[in-house]
Amino acid sequence: MSNIRFISFEGIDGSGKTTHVKSFCNYLINRGIDVISSREPGGTPLGEDVRSFALKQYADKSKKTELFLFEACRAELFKQVIAPALQQGKMVVVDRFCDSTLAYQGYGNGNNLDTVKFVDDFATDGLKPDLTFYLDIDPQKALERRAGRAVVDNIEERGLEYQMRVRQGYLNILRDNPNRVVLIDANQSIDAVDKSIISEFLQRYKD
Amino acid sequence: MSNIRFISFEGIDGSGKTTHVKSFCNYLINRGIDVISSREPGGTPLGEDVRSFALKQYADKSKKTELFLFEACRAELFKQVIAPALQQGKMVVVDRFCDSTLAYQGYGNGNNLDTVKFVDDFATDGLKPDLTFYLDIDPQKALERRAGRAVVDNIEERGLEYQMRVRQGYLNILRDNPNRVVLIDANQSIDAVDKSIISEFLQRYKD
Repeated sequence: MSNIRFISFEGIDGSGKTTHVKSFCNYLINRGIDVISSREPGGTPLGEDVRSFALKQYADKSKKTELFLFEACRAELFKQVIAPALQQGKMVVVDRFCDSTLAYQGYGNGNNLDTVKFVDDFATDGLKPDLTFYLDIDPQKALERRAGRAVVDNIEERGLEYQMRVRQGYLNILRDNPNRVVLIDANQSIDAVDKSIISEFLQRYKD
Repeated sequence: MSNIRFISFEGIDGSGKTTHVKSFCNYLINRGIDVISSREPGGTPLGEDVRSFALKQYADKSKKTELFLFEACRAELFKQVIAPALQQGKMVVVDRFCDSTLAYQGYGNGNNLDTVKFVDDFATDGLKPDLTFYLDIDPQKALERRAGRAVVDNIEERGLEYQMRVRQGYLNILRDNPNRVVLIDANQSIDAVDKSIISEFLQRYKD
């Protein structure tokens, strides 16, 4: 069994996670690796329901409410999708996981960081990804990329300063988890980012 | 300002909480007390949304997911309704609060009790009701009462043994919080229960 089975992609809104999760999964499939991918919040019927109202409605909900809704999605995805897939020996690639919660609901929203970590560990029995690609991008550039999109949810609406706090949160997480989290420069072209991700993966992956 | 401003009603499904919250609030209003009442989960637009799918759908959701969904409702109700009303000097009467979470999601579902308490304290900044009426009823009798009702949610569906565990949880909570929680014998007639509640209230309430 390989040393890396659970991979998360992280980054602020507009950093390109969705695009790169897709191309990275295609790469893995072409290598013959049995992989499932998912996204957060969502990835289960209950999670998608919560996503549709937690992100799109109730912009004034409390910061604790937001944390609990995301953790409900996390716990459900973990139990229904991630844990069973890992048990079956599959590789699991997720668009957001624990670091998003700490970056957004912790650093971004100002919830107590230790409480966020405690609650999150409870949701996932303390399991962390084996490898995390943090797509680092200039928040101003990310904002410009997102300007072309139709759907704006109420986290994206929080604007540049919020995204800057979240980015700083990610950089702190990177500093605190140097063995797990790898910074990818997402200011590059899509192709260059894809290549960086695969290169970093290959430096760490053993069949 | 009176010594009792925040009152919760607790008990297993079918114990008569909804009925007695209503008549107790009517009693308070007739006394000229400015009171608001609410219910959990729910009581806010977001909470009612969560209630409608958390209780009625996804019967197989994980026990941690259920806890987080209830805490999302709790945090929202606390911030949007309970805390502002208390600040305005109103009396607040709620149909379920922290003890429901410990009794159902803790004792009933088997989540770690200390974790449930920690998470719940976080949701409410540690605020507890000044007075809690625990409506104690024989679970078999409660089941018979509920048999006449049209709507069965997926907590009620868990059956007699589950409700017995929840009841035992409530009795433990009563033992651990003798100054806050008052047992009301809910096997009595509706009128007798109402009278017991008012009598216990008057023994404690100071204008």
